[in-house]
Amino acid sequence: MYAEIISVGTELLLGHTINTDAALVARELAAAGVDLLFSSVVGDNPDRLRAALDQALGRSDLVITTGGLGPTDDDLTKETVARAAGLPLVLHEDSLRRLEAFFQGRPVDERQRRQAMLPEGCTVFVNAVGTAPGCAMVTPAGRTIIMLPGPPSELRRMLRDSVAPYLEQRGQSVIHSCMVRTFGMGEGRVAALLAGLTDQANPTVATYAGENETFVRVTAKAAGQREAAALCEPVVGAIRARLGDVVYGVDVPNLEHVVVSELMARGLCLGTAESCTGGLLAKRITDVPGASGVFQAGVVAYANEAKMRLLGVPEAVLQEHGAVSEATARAMAEGARRLSGGGLGVGITGVAGPGGGTPDKPVGLVYICLSDGQESWLRVMSPAPGGIVRDRAWLRLHASSHALDLVRRRLLQLPMQIGKTPARSAQRPGADTRATSRG
Amino acid sequence: MYAEIISVGTELLLGHTINTDAALVARELAAAGVDLLFSSVVGDNPDRLRAALDQALGRSDLVITTGGLGPTDDDLTKETVARAAGLPLVLHEDSLRRLEAFFQGRPVDERQRRQAMLPEGCTVFVNAVGTAPGCAMVTPAGRTIIMLPGPPSELRRMLRDSVAPYLEQRGQSVIHSCMVRTFGMGEGRVAALLAGLTDQANPTVATYAGENETFVRVTAKAAGQREAAALCEPVVGAIRARLGDVVYGVDVPNLEHVVVSELMARGLCLGTAESCTGGLLAKRITDVPGASGVFQAGVVAYANEAKMRLLGVPEAVLQEHGAVSEATARAMAEGARRLSGGGLGVGITGVAGPGGGTPDKPVGLVYICLSDGQESWLRVMSPAPGGIVRDRAWLRLHASSHALDLVRRRLLQLPMQIGKTPARSAQRPGADTRATSRG
Repeated sequence: MYAEIISVGTELLLGHTINTDAALVARELAAAGVDLLFSSVVGDNPDRLRAALDQALGRSDLVITTGGLGPTDDDLTKETVARAAGLPLVLHEDSLRRLEAFFQGRPVDERQRRQAMLPEGCTVFVNAVGTAPGCAMVTPAGRTIIMLPGPPSELRRMLRDSVAPYLEQRGQSVIHSCMVRTFGMGEGRVAALLAGLTDQANPTVATYAGENETFVRVTAKAAGQREAAALCEPVVGAIRARLGDVVYGVDVPNLEHVVVSELMARGLCLGTAESCTGGLLAKRITDVPGASGVFQAGVVAYANEAKMRLLGVPEAVLQEHGAVSEATARAMAEGARRLSGGGLGVGITGVAGPGGGTPDKPVGLVYICLSDGQESWLRVMSPAPGGIVRDRAWLRLHASSHALDLVRRRLLQLPMQIGKTPARSAQRPGADTRATSRG
Repeated sequence: MYAEIISVGTELLLGHTINTDAALVARELAAAGVDLLFSSVVGDNPDRLRAALDQALGRSDLVITTGGLGPTDDDLTKETVARAAGLPLVLHEDSLRRLEAFFQGRPVDERQRRQAMLPEGCTVFVNAVGTAPGCAMVTPAGRTIIMLPGPPSELRRMLRDSVAPYLEQRGQSVIHSCMVRTFGMGEGRVAALLAGLTDQANPTVATYAGENETFVRVTAKAAGQREAAALCEPVVGAIRARLGDVVYGVDVPNLEHVVVSELMARGLCLGTAESCTGGLLAKRITDVPGASGVFQAGVVAYANEAKMRLLGVPEAVLQEHGAVSEATARAMAEGARRLSGGGLGVGITGVAGPGGGTPDKPVGLVYICLSDGQESWLRVMSPAPGGIVRDRAWLRLHASSHALDLVRRRLLQLPMQIGKTPARSAQRPGADTRATSRG
């Protein structure tokens, strides 16, 4: 079965909105074993939408639209799709009742009521978190069209509760896809280490660059989920073996999830003391549901006075070495450790820019320190001489990732420096090489 | 001039990556007055990419590709584009020298070297933050093709430094687009208040729902930037008048930028005390360059002990009212205010879920309090009875936005509750209605 996504919205063509919807739908299709060959965007223009729908219905078995179902003037998807499908719009009583309930007695105006008009004979998908229902219909010509709402929170829920079951009962072959996630190695180096593997056909292996990580995707196709997964497994093993400990997980959401679950497994708490990352590290940790079991407190200490008062950084350290220094990062890590009630502590201090850089302490210089009370480990991010200066958002993200990577390595007893596991050794090294790290 | 984007990458069709690149390019095209009519995604498949290129070159004057220029096996864009354009790839010496400099003496392997092979006669766009250069070429048939790298940080920089000037010198009519940003009002209500305005042709007015905000886009087309802007201006004024003080800015990046600049304008500092938002509020504030002028410290206090020790929340308050309570939010706001050295303080405490809810204190219940030392104002987010339960990420985002909205209203002397300005009154009310807010 070949599928195609049409995302509707002028805001997407003007770049005001990023098309997260297409990614959400794509993931669902992949999970259901549906091949997605095209994904396109059209503006709020009925003629161009109609042309895109006609082209799509001519070449794909399943067409999924996102957006344009709401109460506003430019939400024209439903009328246009119904016309392209050759189905009239009729009032769906249940959807109207849900709308009325949503407005809790306030009058439902004509605009809002239009959301309950749906193509005749369609399967209605309830919108649990918004007003516009979605639906699936089979056209007289035998194509399937699914219409879904644009707001990502509504879409996400509808995909899970309605679209996934709908697709499952219509599926044939299945795609299984594994994502190997790494931190600390560029895409070029990862690809070089995986040479040969990336030429395979089933499963396929592809690398790609995330915002500050490199991912390797392994995708297999088979008659069933189990067979497809079995095809992926040895290839994932081979990738782990070649890349070593820069791999932080397979099919895990992100680095912070790994760190929080490793902390949980050990009953250890982590405290955070942040200057230039400004709370991003604490935010990433507490993004993980249940983080309260391993995280009690964090401090964002921008001002020196806050570093002293809330984290106990000695005034002498700040005066002698400055706020952006190895010594301050160490003292902040100690302060963070006390916040954690004696577990692990991380301190981050640096210059995130764009202002505030000096020749001695340029934008991009960041000190990250982890302390477990007995030992401490330092990472230094420094801009390449004469080289690339990254932007504030990237520097902050990268510094918080380094902090998480340090914690991961300490918890898993891995070498504390990146790139110290020889490639092709998948196992943890026998010797703890922490002493080789700086500090 | 009609333009079209083709984003290349199987990861986009599998949904592992969100297509931020298309949005970045789209925004640049809009600014240059280029009409973008199509945006599509193809996988790492030379045949399908070639078909998409041929279709695009048949109907658009300008085709922009993103992705597929890197050193990895699936990066096939360049070869395919060169073939579709009818131009041979030749070694670009400058790009090779840049590559060698990037690797600082380490050998540049064949994979990496391929990045310096570019279509004959093209305009080369230097990659200031990565290895793969971009380029623009004119085909023998007179179409323009621009190839850009996929990693967003590289793309962003290249758009600004190379693509914008390139497009500017080729532009004709210009699009000017204004974005009116609101917090606290749903898209349906915004659209209803703007009835009539949204039917206009030039400028066009369109509403849309962001993740937890509603935006209104005004887009005008004219011969020059100044004329287009002049068309937008009165319409933006009319929108402000109809929506009132839920409008927090026009063409501003986001709510946190507005708050930080208003704090700066007044020389006031803000302190933050966060429980369920876990540092997200501090992170959003410090996302803004220069935030250190108005933000000295924040505390993430998950555990009660941290609320007491770092923020001075009385133990009696926690015992009597619980951590998730109005009284605790107030005490946290006071603690946060002390962190700010006597400016403003915000406290946030609630249940972000998915676990931890009780019948009394369900998931979605969040107390947000702002204190200026003399008065304090409270907002309560509570889940609709029997209604929608939002997810953790949304609840945290929304709570942090409410906190920022409270600060904005206090600084601008606006009513502290949302929806207290009558629609059609654009001006600040003469009377300060703060006393009408809860608390």
